[in-house]
Amino acid sequence: MGGQEIEQLIRLLGRLPGFGPRSARRVALYLLREPHTRLAPLARAMERAGEAIRTCSSCGNLDTSDPCHICSDPLRDKGLVCVVETVGDLWALERAGVHRGVYQVLGGTLSPLAGVGPEDLNVSALLTRLHEGTVREVILALGATVEGATTMHWLMDQLETYEGLTVSRVAQGVPMGGALDVLDDGTLAAALGARRPA
Amino acid sequence: MGGQEIEQLIRLLGRLPGFGPRSARRVALYLLREPHTRLAPLARAMERAGEAIRTCSSCGNLDTSDPCHICSDPLRDKGLVCVVETVGDLWALERAGVHRGVYQVLGGTLSPLAGVGPEDLNVSALLTRLHEGTVREVILALGATVEGATTMHWLMDQLETYEGLTVSRVAQGVPMGGALDVLDDGTLAAALGARRPA
Ligand SMILES: [Zn+2]
Ligand SMILES: [Zn+2]
Repeated sequence: MGGQEIEQLIRLLGRLPGFGPRSARRVALYLLREPHTRLAPLARAMERAGEAIRTCSSCGNLDTSDPCHICSDPLRDKGLVCVVETVGDLWALERAGVHRGVYQVLGGTLSPLAGVGPEDLNVSALLTRLHEGTVREVILALGATVEGATTMHWLMDQLETYEGLTVSRVAQGVPMGGALDVLDDGTLAAALGARRPA
Repeated sequence: MGGQEIEQLIRLLGRLPGFGPRSARRVALYLLREPHTRLAPLARAMERAGEAIRTCSSCGNLDTSDPCHICSDPLRDKGLVCVVETVGDLWALERAGVHRGVYQVLGGTLSPLAGVGPEDLNVSALLTRLHEGTVREVILALGATVEGATTMHWLMDQLETYEGLTVSRVAQGVPMGGALDVLDDGTLAAALGARRPA
């Protein structure tokens, strides 16, 4: 549609997660209708974020400082490390404000089929911390998927060797506000299996 | 989440049509994970499109040239003008390849409640063409909404004064591949009213 610059914009927008050709065109049109007040500020924000972005060498979080604002916060409990798959998971837990310790972002899950092995996961910083003996408890907050479970069991094997270390995992069950009849069997089974006195 | 540059990016992404805070964070993370191969090219494409974009002074299309590639195409029938509400509508008709004439983009619809009057619609280029006597037929391809109908009737009044001009409107009915039981009553009534011999 009209000019290679516009086509290129639509093509790149169409690669974004959750986008199809239709939404790419819709967003492109929205931006192009007001190039000065919509397109230019977003392009500028992208450039600035791209220049400012750092991967935290301690936990793997994406932030504008390294170490990230969580790792450098003296009020966070460095003895309590929550292991997550992605930065998105970390951000979700931070928004919920439910974890007062620090994190370790694996950057993925073990997946023999996809050729993802232990060497592809970001665990070295965690192992360094463990060797230093500063970690009291590791919380495994991995997804309830086959890959998440595989990764969790591999991690539990690794962590077994550290004496006195508590290793815990997040509970599986019915999500808050979730109706039982829309949940899959696995979730229902987990929720029932982990039942507690009412 | 981590730095004002990242927050600003998420804020601006969240203003895009079809976006909420969740999809804005998801897209920001997707881009920030690969700043060089994802974020930078998209920012650059936006900048280039913003610099290249022109509004066609003849039809109102958004393109990288003025007049746009449709208006400047000698093979397009200048005597056949299709009136649409938005550039998105024009692009949809072009993708379908169903119109061999040119367009007139109104840039909206009449809406007394929203304070949109005839002076806010881009019709002057159409009236100029009509005065020149080069237009044979005007096709009204407006949305099947109250505002679309209001705009169509106002346009039909304006066009009545041109002798020998054919004014037509797109048919309403059952969309291709659409099941009848999911259509609203108005569409069903229009489809039934415009029935033809089978
Ligand atoms: Zn960190
Ligand atoms: Zn044009």
